[in-house]
Amino acid sequence: MGTRLLVIGGDGAGMAAASQVRRAAPDMEIVALEKGRWTSYSACGIPYLAGGALRTIDDLVVRTPDQFRADRIDVRTGHEALSLDLDARRVEVRNLTHQRTFQLGFDYLHLATGALPRRPDIEGVHLPHVHGVQTLDDAASLLEDAKRRRPARVAVIGSGYIGLEMAEAFKDRGAAVTVFEARQEVMATLDPDMARLVAKAMREAGIEVRTGVEVTAIDKAAVVTEAGEVPADLVVLGTGVVANSALAAEAGLAIGVKDSIVVDRQQRTSAEGVWSAGDCCQSINIISGAPTHQALGTVANKQGRVAGLNIAGRYTTFPGVLGTAVTSVCSTEIGRTGLGEDEAAAAGLQIAVATVESTNAAAYMPDSRPVMVKLIAEKGSGRLVGAQIVGGGGSAKRIDVIAAALAGRLTAEDLIGLDLSYAPPISPLWDPVQVAARALLPGL
Amino acid sequence: MGTRLLVIGGDGAGMAAASQVRRAAPDMEIVALEKGRWTSYSACGIPYLAGGALRTIDDLVVRTPDQFRADRIDVRTGHEALSLDLDARRVEVRNLTHQRTFQLGFDYLHLATGALPRRPDIEGVHLPHVHGVQTLDDAASLLEDAKRRRPARVAVIGSGYIGLEMAEAFKDRGAAVTVFEARQEVMATLDPDMARLVAKAMREAGIEVRTGVEVTAIDKAAVVTEAGEVPADLVVLGTGVVANSALAAEAGLAIGVKDSIVVDRQQRTSAEGVWSAGDCCQSINIISGAPTHQALGTVANKQGRVAGLNIAGRYTTFPGVLGTAVTSVCSTEIGRTGLGEDEAAAAGLQIAVATVESTNAAAYMPDSRPVMVKLIAEKGSGRLVGAQIVGGGGSAKRIDVIAAALAGRLTAEDLIGLDLSYAPPISPLWDPVQVAARALLPGL
Repeated sequence: MGTRLLVIGGDGAGMAAASQVRRAAPDMEIVALEKGRWTSYSACGIPYLAGGALRTIDDLVVRTPDQFRADRIDVRTGHEALSLDLDARRVEVRNLTHQRTFQLGFDYLHLATGALPRRPDIEGVHLPHVHGVQTLDDAASLLEDAKRRRPARVAVIGSGYIGLEMAEAFKDRGAAVTVFEARQEVMATLDPDMARLVAKAMREAGIEVRTGVEVTAIDKAAVVTEAGEVPADLVVLGTGVVANSALAAEAGLAIGVKDSIVVDRQQRTSAEGVWSAGDCCQSINIISGAPTHQALGTVANKQGRVAGLNIAGRYTTFPGVLGTAVTSVCSTEIGRTGLGEDEAAAAGLQIAVATVESTNAAAYMPDSRPVMVKLIAEKGSGRLVGAQIVGGGGSAKRIDVIAAALAGRLTAEDLIGLDLSYAPPISPLWDPVQVAARALLPGL
Repeated sequence: MGTRLLVIGGDGAGMAAASQVRRAAPDMEIVALEKGRWTSYSACGIPYLAGGALRTIDDLVVRTPDQFRADRIDVRTGHEALSLDLDARRVEVRNLTHQRTFQLGFDYLHLATGALPRRPDIEGVHLPHVHGVQTLDDAASLLEDAKRRRPARVAVIGSGYIGLEMAEAFKDRGAAVTVFEARQEVMATLDPDMARLVAKAMREAGIEVRTGVEVTAIDKAAVVTEAGEVPADLVVLGTGVVANSALAAEAGLAIGVKDSIVVDRQQRTSAEGVWSAGDCCQSINIISGAPTHQALGTVANKQGRVAGLNIAGRYTTFPGVLGTAVTSVCSTEIGRTGLGEDEAAAAGLQIAVATVESTNAAAYMPDSRPVMVKLIAEKGSGRLVGAQIVGGGGSAKRIDVIAAALAGRLTAEDLIGLDLSYAPPISPLWDPVQVAARALLPGL
């Protein structure tokens, strides 16, 4: 027998690594355990399935177990890793289909156990009409339930990306939708001034958005808050996720912020021959230098690739995260990258801030729509720190220019000088991010 | 009297400088001469006026002479600078309305004389139904003529951005349009393999594109080529522009590539107290380090801003150009930045090239459209050199990520690691530019 790599977790972070190893180390034996039914899928696509833009759950599967098997990756779905013995180099595995437990040895181990939906500790949260949305198995159960119940009133608890996208999805299906957010504003990843624009767009589209309202219980037909009951036939939890790191922690691996697995630049954990990637592990924020937990598909796939190349004996590193994210809800695009005002303050950075209104195309074009850009830079150095965008079509992807500028350690003045593109149907002459940079200069 | 700044040329490069000086040096007297009727306008918007998306020429005027005058900038439209005496610090001016000539003194001079449409040296090129498209005055004359003639057949000679945009504009008005290009492919700013995709999209939209065909003459009712005559009621010249630098050259200023005015990083010409910006002056390509002539509104406005700040006694520099440009024709977006294959070779760079097909949104989304990305990096260092994009909606602006990456001197590996944004309706998980970077790695 050659060397055996055992991958725990069959989604992006696990299978990206497995695929890299397969290519770069053709002789290595690869076994991948997946608790659920699917491998390598797009959980971010679940709202579009719920909303009806996609027809079947299979649309979200990037690569099936059989496709991996054809590539000599021994994928075992319906298999859960129960415990891990690092000294003996073996894992205790439960075959969920046949209800059997067995031991599986490994030489190298890659932990890609992902994240679990956070379930608020309130009465009724485990009722059958209350759904988390983290895995395709979650999605399957939600869709089946929605089909059966045909909910007229849907409650979404939490207002992150998935929460807002699910709210829109059920609105598109004709339900009356209420979003509950305990904080004063939606979308904790945005600064309050930008988040307010998102809430406004959602309300204008007919979604009830209730901020500053804590849900205290869920019962069969309603969501209970301090301010009274709101009828709901179906409840979606958009209350974020927690790193699924129990297996690693019990085996004695170093655990970092928010229970995520500590890794180095090569995605190596604290134990020899054990790597980790994706929603279960910790990242370093490029701007603050601080450890952070970022459960995003882009990060998971990049980290998985890096882990795989290193497992195969190549050398490559993961540069860290900026927290870049975009979405589109109710005809409004939202993007963010780097640090917000509070995050910058927490990182010890003194900042200048500019928020400007521009347009996504030349203002004179009939289809042009407003774009708000908030740009943050460090005082003195002028170095960019972060940005947030809320606006019409084509707004959000502009955040990537800032992400690239942050990676290149560019200043606000550099951003003004950037040779960015312009054509009347696509952009104003000064791109909105440059308009923001110009407004920022006097404050630096 | 205080110091007098004389600006020659009332479009972006001239008026951006004037506006900066007005703010930063409130006491300076500013006189701006403009040969035509309009100031500070969007010539890039002319095709959308011609195609009917905009209603009046005034839509394209960003700031009128009266608005500048209210800001104590003495704009004189219908005034042409005839000659320049640098020793005597004065210019000979022709008032075109009253047909009078007079002398005007200055302390500082800013030359923003722009570019002139290149008129091919063929018979009939000066006929009244043959139109260049460089200034709003050109646009006014073209629109008036098109209204009168109601052309059923339109010929566009040349296939740069404006040529292709004008071709689509007349197609949208119901005319049969033929584009003539003497070279083997359209769009000299793209590599041939990418340009071919553009020609294909235009043909599929019903525009006749004839490449490798030289126009030898124009007569009243047809365009004459080596391969026969093609009927045409109206002819648009999209044959590019030449720097309008005669005034500067005659005054003895240093002239560089393609007759453009030589400037330093502060936009200073070879003469003391004389600045220049925009389509009349030379730029440095950031990647090759070579002087180039780039007639683009974005560059003009940035250079104008830099010139203005320096004229006002501040210090700032123009970082150079990447040749970033985008457009949208026939539902296809096109973007380019940095060097193409031939330009890289001419700059002495050994390169690796990857061309990939990806999608503008997650491939499973019903509205997703193909995107071709060509990415070029330097061998060995892996440093990015340039990129070209042709694809569906939202494709082109992705070129700005590469522009920012080029400014930050990032490598293909850096690009793979960039924390770019993802959401199914807006982008695949790996952005198309990162898919290209991954394909590029093995060749480096």
